[in-house]
Amino acid sequence: MLPQKSEKIPRATIRRLAVYVQVLENMARNNIDVISSGPLAEACDVNASQVRKDLAYFGEFGVRGVGYHVTSLIHAIKLSLGVDREWRAALVGVGNLGRALLHYGEFKSRGFHFVGAFDCDPFKLGEQVYGLEVSCTSTLKAAVQEKNIEIGVITTPPERAQRAADHLVDAGIKGILNFAPARIVVPDDVHVEYVDFFHYIYALAFDISTTENR
Amino acid sequence: MLPQKSEKIPRATIRRLAVYVQVLENMARNNIDVISSGPLAEACDVNASQVRKDLAYFGEFGVRGVGYHVTSLIHAIKLSLGVDREWRAALVGVGNLGRALLHYGEFKSRGFHFVGAFDCDPFKLGEQVYGLEVSCTSTLKAAVQEKNIEIGVITTPPERAQRAADHLVDAGIKGILNFAPARIVVPDDVHVEYVDFFHYIYALAFDISTTENR
Repeated sequence: MLPQKSEKIPRATIRRLAVYVQVLENMARNNIDVISSGPLAEACDVNASQVRKDLAYFGEFGVRGVGYHVTSLIHAIKLSLGVDREWRAALVGVGNLGRALLHYGEFKSRGFHFVGAFDCDPFKLGEQVYGLEVSCTSTLKAAVQEKNIEIGVITTPPERAQRAADHLVDAGIKGILNFAPARIVVPDDVHVEYVDFFHYIYALAFDISTTENR
Repeated sequence: MLPQKSEKIPRATIRRLAVYVQVLENMARNNIDVISSGPLAEACDVNASQVRKDLAYFGEFGVRGVGYHVTSLIHAIKLSLGVDREWRAALVGVGNLGRALLHYGEFKSRGFHFVGAFDCDPFKLGEQVYGLEVSCTSTLKAAVQEKNIEIGVITTPPERAQRAADHLVDAGIKGILNFAPARIVVPDDVHVEYVDFFHYIYALAFDISTTENR
């Protein structure tokens, strides 16, 4: 169950929370118990008043004059985001990027587990990829029900992204992480996040160009 | 040379421009010559007035009652972003994700070329990865100068990201794309974009959780 308040957390805050968790987990690994908003803000590249505002959604984890208890704060943020538990995901499109993600240890260590790998290439069917057998995308629906899969990850070429999305929607998936550089159309009750590398590359190219031309 | 106006383009607009380019290039491939702001907005999941506002930075590409000329608009956006030319990049951290990115065809087809691959693992040195020989990270500086490398891509484990960043900064790189789930500290004149998969996963988990609990 989520704290009622969390439904009102703005999208921009959600994204910053992921950064706070990353930095806080690193602090916890280095045995830091308590952190004040100043150093936390600095480590996250966010200003301190923004940090305090964002963390105000999580009740009273700040102790005036002392700071935040690192592990309690991590727990509270994860609980509110709904990432304090395991998430089971299916990957569609077992190419290079797909294989890399299936093998990406950071996912597993943060409770994000791939339990299915799908492709429509007959040459890939039956292949074992990091402990998962590649299955035909047409069997996705049965697998989603059988394995309680909640998230679909698309790593197909762009021209096949919509077809992958259609399969995932048909299987009852309500959340899609789309790595294919293509927009997809899904019903309103299905959430999509686009991981588009070119958002970042274009922003970077722009920053470098404008700095050079200044 | 960039249009002077482009330095004032807000960051949020820059990110949307990458989406417009993606959608417009898809339209161009489907032989669509002219598009009005309504259908373009719909295909990009942005409202039409926002599209018109964003595209106003690119002068008069809209023809009243007709729409935008697709190829001219693509060219104008890319010119303003500085992505109308080739960008040469070095990758640091030849693990699974690194290998996948080196082989990712979408990069090449959009003018983003990896010309160097670096790792400090002696077992990887000399290995050929998709036509690039893995070199010791200590040789980065010479390679950056010799090969005119402008962008550094970090795909190391999180605990080695800062060391990779230090090497890139020392080599004179002014733009870093960081895929490692760790914050890095760099001088003010070096631009960093974080591609953090967990930003998206957390947002998705939050959306699914709050929908289910509604």
